[in-house]
Amino acid sequence: MSITQFIHRGKHMYGERTAFVYGQRTTSYNELHERVSRSAAILQQLDSSEDARIGLLTAASDLAITLFFASSWAGMVPNYLNIRWSEHELAGSIDDFRCRILVVDDLFLDLGLALQRRCDCIEHLIYIGERENLPSSVLKYDSLYASAEAIEDDSVDIDGLAYINYTGGTTGKGKGVMISHRSHFAALNTIAAEGFVTAGDTLMALPLFHISGIAVSNSALMLGNTLHILPAFDPVQVMQVVQERQIVQALLIPTMLQMLVNHPQFEEFDLSSLRHIRYGASPIDQALLAQVQRKLPWADLMQVYGQTECVPATFLHHRDHGEAGVASGRTRSAGTPCLGVEIIIRDEDGKPLPRGEIGEITMRSSFVMEGYLNMPEQTATALRDGWVYTGDAGYMSEDDFLYVVDRIKDMIISGGENIYSAEVENAIAQHEAVVQCAVVGLSDEKWGEKVHAEVVLNPGASLSDSELTEFCRKYLATYKVPKSFCFVEAIPLTAVGKVDKVTIRQLRD
Amino acid sequence: MSITQFIHRGKHMYGERTAFVYGQRTTSYNELHERVSRSAAILQQLDSSEDARIGLLTAASDLAITLFFASSWAGMVPNYLNIRWSEHELAGSIDDFRCRILVVDDLFLDLGLALQRRCDCIEHLIYIGERENLPSSVLKYDSLYASAEAIEDDSVDIDGLAYINYTGGTTGKGKGVMISHRSHFAALNTIAAEGFVTAGDTLMALPLFHISGIAVSNSALMLGNTLHILPAFDPVQVMQVVQERQIVQALLIPTMLQMLVNHPQFEEFDLSSLRHIRYGASPIDQALLAQVQRKLPWADLMQVYGQTECVPATFLHHRDHGEAGVASGRTRSAGTPCLGVEIIIRDEDGKPLPRGEIGEITMRSSFVMEGYLNMPEQTATALRDGWVYTGDAGYMSEDDFLYVVDRIKDMIISGGENIYSAEVENAIAQHEAVVQCAVVGLSDEKWGEKVHAEVVLNPGASLSDSELTEFCRKYLATYKVPKSFCFVEAIPLTAVGKVDKVTIRQLRD
Repeated sequence: MSITQFIHRGKHMYGERTAFVYGQRTTSYNELHERVSRSAAILQQLDSSEDARIGLLTAASDLAITLFFASSWAGMVPNYLNIRWSEHELAGSIDDFRCRILVVDDLFLDLGLALQRRCDCIEHLIYIGERENLPSSVLKYDSLYASAEAIEDDSVDIDGLAYINYTGGTTGKGKGVMISHRSHFAALNTIAAEGFVTAGDTLMALPLFHISGIAVSNSALMLGNTLHILPAFDPVQVMQVVQERQIVQALLIPTMLQMLVNHPQFEEFDLSSLRHIRYGASPIDQALLAQVQRKLPWADLMQVYGQTECVPATFLHHRDHGEAGVASGRTRSAGTPCLGVEIIIRDEDGKPLPRGEIGEITMRSSFVMEGYLNMPEQTATALRDGWVYTGDAGYMSEDDFLYVVDRIKDMIISGGENIYSAEVENAIAQHEAVVQCAVVGLSDEKWGEKVHAEVVLNPGASLSDSELTEFCRKYLATYKVPKSFCFVEAIPLTAVGKVDKVTIRQLRD
Repeated sequence: MSITQFIHRGKHMYGERTAFVYGQRTTSYNELHERVSRSAAILQQLDSSEDARIGLLTAASDLAITLFFASSWAGMVPNYLNIRWSEHELAGSIDDFRCRILVVDDLFLDLGLALQRRCDCIEHLIYIGERENLPSSVLKYDSLYASAEAIEDDSVDIDGLAYINYTGGTTGKGKGVMISHRSHFAALNTIAAEGFVTAGDTLMALPLFHISGIAVSNSALMLGNTLHILPAFDPVQVMQVVQERQIVQALLIPTMLQMLVNHPQFEEFDLSSLRHIRYGASPIDQALLAQVQRKLPWADLMQVYGQTECVPATFLHHRDHGEAGVASGRTRSAGTPCLGVEIIIRDEDGKPLPRGEIGEITMRSSFVMEGYLNMPEQTATALRDGWVYTGDAGYMSEDDFLYVVDRIKDMIISGGENIYSAEVENAIAQHEAVVQCAVVGLSDEKWGEKVHAEVVLNPGASLSDSELTEFCRKYLATYKVPKSFCFVEAIPLTAVGKVDKVTIRQLRD
């Protein structure tokens, strides 16, 4: 029993209903079944080995998701490669993952060719675009598909791997998180049971290589929804699609939400169909939350927190986004443990800490990873007795709300004091002239590290270092107040839209 | 992480919302949290041993469910005893289960006292009713509760047992099915993800000792619904409650549905709030289905099939209950495998059979039992390599629909031919004068077994053996046509409302 069950169910339960809308192309659930079973034949013919793996280096598209499921159908393990990574980083994960087949689209054909030359494991490069006159080493998917005949589902056991997903490439060697079918089923059932995904047309404006993209695409197929796929996030395109196709639900990250509600054309679109906005990757800035609620009052909001290693971990439900939620501070939390998820905050020795005390967030559930591919030591560190050690620092309130304060490695130690950047960021964000901010520790001879803030101001607003310093003193102990500020146009983001603190530190250190 | 998570979540997510309505008594989610944490103190004080178990011999009630969760909270394993069983049968399961605490309500106080005398393991008898002047060996829950102080949740690991549930008592010694918290979470998440349960006021008119009762009560608490509990099924009371309290969803068994729609007072009630009717325990008779759809046209229907050992296993969704579903025969099926459930039909040697061929239904999922308590041999027979062998005979259609034809042991072997009673029953049920029928094999010198039918006719209708024989010949091979008929007022039912073939055979053999 693999997640190809969604493809079988799709055919007999949803039939002619549309599974994918991608540009002008639509695919029904019947067609998806045919596409997957025939594409699986292509893959199996190219690689019939027992440990066959397949790398997918493409923007989000109907075909990419089809090939993800075709991999399972063919008994292979798929991996959506991180399309924001450099050739060097990608080669590292491919050499680790040892895929014989690499799939690329128009955007990544050249990079795919370079990787084919560089990585000796790659035997076949499949191109899913429409270009003709390809180099001889490239197989064109359309041509292969034309002559492929459907094969029976040859997928693995429920305890076999559903996919591998690389994380952490920006802070060292990427780690290949291994997720079993059983685990993926459990995670998707939980997000459906909790109402994080529901029936209705779904927007997909996330990259597939991020766990949120996998969750959105696969849960849509599980529930028989129509998935409207955009190859990349573009605020105007998102608003157009929501309006035209009456999108009901979308998972966005706060940065995307900000780009939407602040867009000069925002008022031109009717977004009233969008009843469910889900966000993740980071808690929402309080000013942004207020703005979203003012501008999209019909939408219920729900936050997810988790890691590829164990996701979902917590949900902040819509009911906690209202006035009471803001007043109680719950909107600054990551919410409460999901159904079947246990969270314990631990000290450096792994001992559980009392509520209210900050320590490492650890979690256990039916959907933890199997481990990191080829990394027994890192696996032993991250996964102990069934518990995922997240590397995130946080605390649990008396009433079971989880507050994530920082990555443990992002914690600033200044003059021997632990400073959590989130706390400083929350203080700065209170200032009405501030749109966004990010706080990091920079090396300092005297203090070890000193607190530094990057700040984006409202258009037209101005603010001096000393004004902001004074403002911060109202909220923070002196040692937490930034020693330096940079007022910038925009804050650098990582591939998945999180604030890129590594880059900030490199720039300012 | 145990299912006490529902109690914690209930408090912080639903607070003052009503969890239970039972007669004139209502319990909010806040109150439920207090009730559970204080009741757990009572239980722990009476039995602090590590393998503490508790037997609950009560009709469905708010307090019974509260004590079920209090057991988990106190680190104990609860068991809703089968209230239809005889003292002898109950003593058998109690001696097997070895509970030191037995909880009884008004209906079962006398039986509880008898069991206390009979079973040496029972140390404490807790009475949850309101009677005064109790025998000295009885502890009154209300009195204990008045002085109990809440304790911290002391529940076990996610892989510990959530409950034990006895099955099969009518055909030999009852078997104690052991279900872990992890498994129960997975099952409830799946029924929510598939829409078998949803948000909204829920009717509970099922006994708690049946897995369906546990699923209905616990899923309601998981989703924050209000559960309206009736101590027993009574058609008029059900209709009253649905109308008065605007019940949205109810799980009923076909026999109950029949009693509802055929009730002379049916037209007197407004049941239009009842949008979701779920049924299980057996497929629905086609005439009854048509009647339900005509009389409750606003309700969507969904069937569940499974066993305590692995439930849910399949769902027949509402979409397959329409005209096309009837025409294609799907309404006679048990539906398609649930999300994450794999079903294989096997021959006597355990080898998978092709689609369309009848064999033993086996299933695998994340919610199979841990085994039978104290029965390693029966466990090894029923649970092999993670697969539950159901003892049900059935086949899988080309399009993934499961058809349950019989219990394997109910299969009739006549003159060397295998005859599935369901097939014969379906033929007889086609006759317009027939309301209900049941087919069994009776011992026969010549044939080994002969096919016998019990038939209930429409009021006023009459039918002779030879007329019905002739009618059956239109649908069945001669060897399958019953050799004898009994026209009866009603067909005997088991405790959970299934046709009681054991009793029929005893009566007629």
